[in-house]
Amino acid sequence: MARIASLSGFPEWLPVGRIVENTVLDRLRATFELHGFASLETRGVEPLDQLMRKGAIDKEVYVLSRLQETDPEASRHSRQLGLHFDLTVPFARYVTENAGKLAFPFKRYQIQKVWRGERPQDGRFREFTQADIDVVSQGTLPGHYEYELPLIMVEALRSLPLPPVHVLVNNRKIVEGFYRGVGFDDPTIVMRVIDKLDKIGPQAVSSLLESDAHATTAQAEACLALAAINSSDASFADQVYALGIRNSQLDEGLAELVQVIEAAGGLMPGALRADLKVARGLDYYTGSVYESVLEGHDSLGSICSGGRYDSLASVGQMSYPGVGLSIGVSRLISRLLGENLVTASRSVPTAVLVAVSEEATRPVSSAVAAQLRARGIPAEAAPSADKFGKQIKYADKRGIPYVWFPAAGSEPSQVKDIRSGNQMDADPATWAIPEEDRWPSIIVNV
Amino acid sequence: MARIASLSGFPEWLPVGRIVENTVLDRLRATFELHGFASLETRGVEPLDQLMRKGAIDKEVYVLSRLQETDPEASRHSRQLGLHFDLTVPFARYVTENAGKLAFPFKRYQIQKVWRGERPQDGRFREFTQADIDVVSQGTLPGHYEYELPLIMVEALRSLPLPPVHVLVNNRKIVEGFYRGVGFDDPTIVMRVIDKLDKIGPQAVSSLLESDAHATTAQAEACLALAAINSSDASFADQVYALGIRNSQLDEGLAELVQVIEAAGGLMPGALRADLKVARGLDYYTGSVYESVLEGHDSLGSICSGGRYDSLASVGQMSYPGVGLSIGVSRLISRLLGENLVTASRSVPTAVLVAVSEEATRPVSSAVAAQLRARGIPAEAAPSADKFGKQIKYADKRGIPYVWFPAAGSEPSQVKDIRSGNQMDADPATWAIPEEDRWPSIIVNV
Repeated sequence: MARIASLSGFPEWLPVGRIVENTVLDRLRATFELHGFASLETRGVEPLDQLMRKGAIDKEVYVLSRLQETDPEASRHSRQLGLHFDLTVPFARYVTENAGKLAFPFKRYQIQKVWRGERPQDGRFREFTQADIDVVSQGTLPGHYEYELPLIMVEALRSLPLPPVHVLVNNRKIVEGFYRGVGFDDPTIVMRVIDKLDKIGPQAVSSLLESDAHATTAQAEACLALAAINSSDASFADQVYALGIRNSQLDEGLAELVQVIEAAGGLMPGALRADLKVARGLDYYTGSVYESVLEGHDSLGSICSGGRYDSLASVGQMSYPGVGLSIGVSRLISRLLGENLVTASRSVPTAVLVAVSEEATRPVSSAVAAQLRARGIPAEAAPSADKFGKQIKYADKRGIPYVWFPAAGSEPSQVKDIRSGNQMDADPATWAIPEEDRWPSIIVNV
Repeated sequence: MARIASLSGFPEWLPVGRIVENTVLDRLRATFELHGFASLETRGVEPLDQLMRKGAIDKEVYVLSRLQETDPEASRHSRQLGLHFDLTVPFARYVTENAGKLAFPFKRYQIQKVWRGERPQDGRFREFTQADIDVVSQGTLPGHYEYELPLIMVEALRSLPLPPVHVLVNNRKIVEGFYRGVGFDDPTIVMRVIDKLDKIGPQAVSSLLESDAHATTAQAEACLALAAINSSDASFADQVYALGIRNSQLDEGLAELVQVIEAAGGLMPGALRADLKVARGLDYYTGSVYESVLEGHDSLGSICSGGRYDSLASVGQMSYPGVGLSIGVSRLISRLLGENLVTASRSVPTAVLVAVSEEATRPVSSAVAAQLRARGIPAEAAPSADKFGKQIKYADKRGIPYVWFPAAGSEPSQVKDIRSGNQMDADPATWAIPEEDRWPSIIVNV
């Protein structure tokens, strides 16, 4: 078991699991930076009023207090702080706060932990790592980002040891316009009910629509019919029109989604699919909304989600529209490790253990290790001058592939591949390590 | 100003500052991994009873509560959680919790944020990033780690754009044995007073020793005389003996420190210095203790500190002695950015901006950018099909060195170095970017 949690909802990994996680994070970062996204890190806390401004998840926030606050009145009157529950709200705050020092459109990625006080369950943690990309502009935001950003996420996810991934796209204007066209005054309630479709099924959704949104049977059926539409090309639009609902906001949304699906199809066929059941719980999305599917892992839910927001951040007359997606890294890693889908070739970075024949000659072994490190080969001297058999066992236990024996008297300097048992003369100044052995590698168990 | 903080004590960096920070963190990580340290990340929270077990900093802890805890009694009775204030206590908890699954001696590095509720002041934050290395063993820990770990930290710090750094070493056994030899029953009180020497000076320390530790004038003088001793070789031991105090614990400590200084001198001359005023506030150190000096930045205080602990972690009869050091990364970055000592060559990873002549040909520009990225060159298509002058300005504002003009009609594909103005024909499949331009680089202002 590579996953451990002594505190429910707060996962930690063993060293091998952490190597898998770091490999995943490194590859995500590499993709984001190749696409020109700047790294950003925001503080872990935000004033509570900032955190509660958007979304319906206020009850999940962890609030901070100082253990030995000497003046309780002072604490009550100062702005209370809470741990951030996502990276979008802090990013919006950062952008408006530093707008004068940033160049727009501003593209950033952010890989950080977030906290939610909800009841822990399989794949749902109280502390977890997210990897986000967002682009934010001043005033207006070009529409091409609405297909470019999800494609970058697909590219990033495809660099990982995962089954095929694709992103499902919908547009808030489609669902809002459609629901209004059907006769609902408050599309938000309908949206929240439809969001439960995958969990509770159409029958229960229909009942909820009738009880919570006062829908007629015909209205509920229309909403379910919309949610059932999906396609990998622009044909979804005709299916929607065939339902006979007309609304200008619906038309606008359909045109936008057609553009997104067609442009994405030209760049990366099959990566994005239109799926009109995608709703997303958060209030702040105003255009495209995204969820993703990891083939064969439906129970995991969406591992990458997001959308376009036009008014999350604004200062006076200036608004900062944006579009972004977020990968739930911890949930992904937890599944990869928990089902033993991937592991690492060793539990330490060390590629070469330099044996120590007696404590008096430790400086000789340390010098060999330093020579190897200077050539970019992870190396360390053995912890104790035990019998060589015990030193080899030290390497074996950690998966370190090579043990080095420094020259001693007439004995030449030698290196042993402890996997094959092959041992040969070698000079630390020139020995070439096979590139695949230099750093721990990821092993995919399929 | 690359440093910003809208919330006192919670620093954030602008994109250029974050590039500096990431470069620093990448170099630290590279050094730690070359030396075979495994990466580890522990959860951000610990049960309060765990956090308050060691050290005298209980009043600095941030305690968590859930915003909408429905049953206040439930929360009061469950184990309260606090944010960790360092990475040593969580590491000790992790080691004892997972001892059966780890291979000892276990060497790990850990780069994470920590939180302290203290009053913010220059260089002292409420949220900051630490970079720690520790080695922990089961039962006994070989003494060579007491010079190897601080040397690894010096190597890591020397890989950064910093003035010369060296580590000051003392040994708890020296000060405890000496204070006992002088006639104090409780060396801890003396140690805490001596720890203030740099801040308040010898006169005030002397008074405090007399008032708080009931020292005679002669005893106070002896303690100050010990604290004044330092050397880059083993000669400090003779200076201590010349003070005429005899104690077996003192002898043991001197022998250990002589070994540390001499072995370190053989491996990396000048990197470690014996300095007998180094005390360290935390209770859990039992052998070597370390502080560090950044030349020309005395006011910054120690940027890398630590020590050996024999009983921080234990389960039943089994103890887990360890030695570790911690770099205060945020404090260091804050100084580097605040005094404009370093900056980055650009504010985004992008090396090449691919111009877009009209929105209809965006796919052509996107394809060129994708071709460059596939060859490891960070590239993005321009956000809008503005006039080329405006697109070049977009690149210039971010420090992006190259603008690419895709082939159009009879016009060949060209790349322009916007710093020199040089423009030449180029093929995205073969164009070689100068290696120093591929990624943002660090510029040191001396």
